[in-house]
Amino acid sequence: MSVASRSARTYTYTVFKRFNSSVKTTGFKLSGSDIPKNATIFSMIQPTGKFHLGNYLGAVRVWKDIADLKDDGTTLLFGTADLHAITVPKPNVKEFREYRTEAIASILSIGIDPEKAIVFHQSRVSQHAELHWLLSSFASMGSLNRMTQWKSKSNINDQSDDTALGAIKLGLFAYPVLQAADILLYRSTHVPVGDDQSQHLELTRQLSNTFNAFYKTKYFPMPTTILAPTKKILSLSNPEKKMSKSDLNQKSVIYITDAPDVIAKKVKRAVTDSISESFYYDPVNRPGISNLINTLSGVQRVSIEEVEKDIRHIKDHKNFKQYVTDVLVAELTPSRERFHHFMKNPDYLHQVSEEGASKASEIAEKNITEVKRIMGFL
Amino acid sequence: MSVASRSARTYTYTVFKRFNSSVKTTGFKLSGSDIPKNATIFSMIQPTGKFHLGNYLGAVRVWKDIADLKDDGTTLLFGTADLHAITVPKPNVKEFREYRTEAIASILSIGIDPEKAIVFHQSRVSQHAELHWLLSSFASMGSLNRMTQWKSKSNINDQSDDTALGAIKLGLFAYPVLQAADILLYRSTHVPVGDDQSQHLELTRQLSNTFNAFYKTKYFPMPTTILAPTKKILSLSNPEKKMSKSDLNQKSVIYITDAPDVIAKKVKRAVTDSISESFYYDPVNRPGISNLINTLSGVQRVSIEEVEKDIRHIKDHKNFKQYVTDVLVAELTPSRERFHHFMKNPDYLHQVSEEGASKASEIAEKNITEVKRIMGFL
Repeated sequence: MSVASRSARTYTYTVFKRFNSSVKTTGFKLSGSDIPKNATIFSMIQPTGKFHLGNYLGAVRVWKDIADLKDDGTTLLFGTADLHAITVPKPNVKEFREYRTEAIASILSIGIDPEKAIVFHQSRVSQHAELHWLLSSFASMGSLNRMTQWKSKSNINDQSDDTALGAIKLGLFAYPVLQAADILLYRSTHVPVGDDQSQHLELTRQLSNTFNAFYKTKYFPMPTTILAPTKKILSLSNPEKKMSKSDLNQKSVIYITDAPDVIAKKVKRAVTDSISESFYYDPVNRPGISNLINTLSGVQRVSIEEVEKDIRHIKDHKNFKQYVTDVLVAELTPSRERFHHFMKNPDYLHQVSEEGASKASEIAEKNITEVKRIMGFL
Repeated sequence: MSVASRSARTYTYTVFKRFNSSVKTTGFKLSGSDIPKNATIFSMIQPTGKFHLGNYLGAVRVWKDIADLKDDGTTLLFGTADLHAITVPKPNVKEFREYRTEAIASILSIGIDPEKAIVFHQSRVSQHAELHWLLSSFASMGSLNRMTQWKSKSNINDQSDDTALGAIKLGLFAYPVLQAADILLYRSTHVPVGDDQSQHLELTRQLSNTFNAFYKTKYFPMPTTILAPTKKILSLSNPEKKMSKSDLNQKSVIYITDAPDVIAKKVKRAVTDSISESFYYDPVNRPGISNLINTLSGVQRVSIEEVEKDIRHIKDHKNFKQYVTDVLVAELTPSRERFHHFMKNPDYLHQVSEEGASKASEIAEKNITEVKRIMGFL
């Protein structure tokens, strides 16, 4: 288990003891025992630009693993969180349309089969916003104020919390309640997410519990968080911060659509250190090298120790970086080729997401009707 | 113009100078010049129990006046704000169902013709919640924090604002944004509301303006607030506070469904004073008498001065109260009889509200599609 996910579990354990069993960190490769039969598995990714290696290892590749293990009774829903995307500085309208299309292409290019999983845009299913409003009357302002994401996303950390709170938009503050609505709308039982979403998943379980207790029902499930085992992938030029598509230095970000020569160049320029002859994992003293070793571990689905064993024969930086490049290129090439293929077929992408929306709407309509009946609206 | 609405206008003028012309106080009887041709007029009332005299004079009777003046090109939408009703302590589910039905019966019993106005439950039109979410990304937390209603409704005025804010639910805090969505969803041009809603209407105009400016569009209108001329109707037992259905002393509240003998009893027990021989308006020294005179002015649609002239011949409390009772009974009897008639026909009420929801949905669906297109979701 990684340091990051271990600390997430400790936090969870401290704050919400009774929900502790609802967080599950999987092995490098999901196994059938991770996903029980007849589960409803739900996850979304924000359509705010291309997917990078962090998104890939932390989210969408896990979706593919899950899709491969799916039994007939299990429902998979993978969406673009386009209603969430407008809570950060709103993208230019034209770019936003492209990002939404690229997000669908990316999901499919990882190898998700739209016959087996419901692939859709969140904004095409109006019940997400409806359930958001209904849950709003259960979420206390205090619990939302304790969420950390709006603070980090507001980009005004130097100010006091109060000043920052006044300046942000309601949408960013209410974001976790929409996320809870996304998940509970389909009565999802399992939610694969990155570490940074653990807190929101706890809120989801709290809201589920509060609703059920208030109406003396068991309607909403207590969804289990599935955490991928890979630690955060860090910036290639500054291995102290997360790899991020908003990084001003775009050479520090590897996109899953990067061509082999682009990957080679970016890895070559990655910040490492001057210790040669031996490459091992030591994030405190060798952050750059450790980030690359961690990336190898994630991509190859093996432990850090196994990576260290595999690279024991490498004695200089040039060969080490070539090795990293080869592993990345081999992993990403099939997805990249499929991505470009799909992007040439926008009509097909549109058809997939509309059919997905229609299937999702059918479940959503049925469930929101039941929720409204429980609450006395019907 | 009444004191209360004059102060509302002063406030408006001070805070939002440029929107000042968007607030209009009508005469005691609306005239054709108050409502231009081809307007879209929207208002809602919370289904949280029976309507009392304050709701009647401040809201629904104005709806009836508007409906009587409607030209063919004007659209009228009158709804029950049932999505708003869950932001105050949630009613018992069974009661909530009854309140929703009673609200539709009350609207019809005032004389609103469902052939001329769209009468519906807000929760049956999913686009209210959708537009709420979309507008959430434009409403700053600071502007919502300045709203006064969540503070009064939270019932924790003795605490500091910060403590109160932490304890309330997101739904109560976000309430004004849902209200803005309600209004803008139909591109409403005129909104008849009570004084206490003026601040929310200003926020609605701000959000309309912010959205239009951001997307360089003129899609949303700047809706005009229509304020009824009657001042707040006060409690019969304590003429220092508003008449309210949540008053523990139910004898201080006159419901529009009260039978003549009930009205007579309540008026008889109304707190007045010991000054006999002459009855005149002096809210500071004679609050009880002034509240009854103000009620007469509202019901009879004449100025305070005219009421004073009409009652000049009355020389004792008993006769004064009998006069008030007679005026109220004459005004409320037709509505009360219709209300009981409608409540015996729940199927008809259901049919009216479902047909209304279907007509409202048609407009809402068209408009939300355009909003989503402007924002890049389509």
